Amino acid sequence: MLKLFYAPGTCALATRIVLEEIGAPYELIRVDFAKQEQTSPDYLAINPKGRVPALVTERGVLSETPALLAYLAQMFPQAGLAPLDDPFAFAELQAFNAYLAATVHVAHAHGRRGSRWASEPASFDDMKRKVPETMAACMELIERELFRGPWVMGEIYTVADAYLFTIETWLEGDGVEIGDFPGIAEHFGRMGERKAVRQALA
Amino acid sequence: MLKLFYAPGTCALATRIVLEEIGAPYELIRVDFAKQEQTSPDYLAINPKGRVPALVTERGVLSETPALLAYLAQMFPQAGLAPLDDPFAFAELQAFNAYLAATVHVAHAHGRRGSRWASEPASFDDMKRKVPETMAACMELIERELFRGPWVMGEIYTVADAYLFTIETWLEGDGVEIGDFPGIAEHFGRMGERKAVRQALA
Repeated sequence: MLKLFYAPGTCALATRIVLEEIGAPYELIRVDFAKQEQTSPDYLAINPKGRVPALVTERGVLSETPALLAYLAQMFPQAGLAPLDDPFAFAELQAFNAYLAATVHVAHAHGRRGSRWASEPASFDDMKRKVPETMAACMELIERELFRGPWVMGEIYTVADAYLFTIETWLEGDGVEIGDFPGIAEHFGRMGERKAVRQALA
Repeated sequence: MLKLFYAPGTCALATRIVLEEIGAPYELIRVDFAKQEQTSPDYLAINPKGRVPALVTERGVLSETPALLAYLAQMFPQAGLAPLDDPFAFAELQAFNAYLAATVHVAHAHGRRGSRWASEPASFDDMKRKVPETMAACMELIERELFRGPWVMGEIYTVADAYLFTIETWLEGDGVEIGDFPGIAEHFGRMGERKAVRQALA
């Protein structure tokens, strides 16, 4: 059975939603960040990066949200969560997920993980102050250029919707008013009505 | 014909190497960062993110290196640049590329693009000082946990090798001694012997 190592409030939610959408049995294992379990020897033996998510499969452990999302879509094609037979459409989906991982998630992380990239408390404060601006700029670009509606890729619901929803749950804490981006706000509401999303948040 | 918008010294090199490996005809268009062409209206019409690489295909424009690399591997399967028939191995490859994009490239970018995430010159200096440490930590993790040798994924040469090589070319400027990581140093040398790499650097 698949095992997902996750922590609440992290990007591991995206993979959890996708597992719920697929309906495959999986075991959920919480990594307690308050106890710094993510850097414990036991967890580092599973994911040496000391991050979540990590997905344990029969073949071994996988990490990195964009890779996990594409993997689950490929392993469970009957769920129809990616345009697997169209390399261009699949690349568009992957480009969206890569933007969330390498730009949007990174912008968010500067609000609370400044010590990854600097050493002085004044720098952390400076980074934190800029988060509302950088996250709003990301949402503006997504709404204007990338999001097609009603789902990210248009008419078909994909793994990218689970990933975007995960980031939408961060916006309030990041000082971004989701209502400033009507398409994204509607997407957030639409996602919240899905059974898989409600189960993943339970 | 495929068109690649690139700039020297950027991660667009990875896609250029892969295009050379494939041997498909492509047009190379340089975006002049010194003239800030990446934020000109003409370029933003191609890639609204204002970044390189951007790959123009018959179907439309794609961006984000991990997406481009997987796309080219899928579109040109005869080049054998990814384990396309094995979703687990493909996910391992994608996880490696996602780590380069969302962690390693981001660590590097703090050396010269601090204004993306902070506002004060003192913060930029602080970020810049930390780059040798964060990039060395990334290389240590890659060498110890991810890199199999002689290529990233083991015996088969993949698109991940082009991406890792691109980042290896940044190490000296980032204050990292590549010789501290023998596997990575050997990989850098081995890549430099490939015709496709020499042509991409020409």
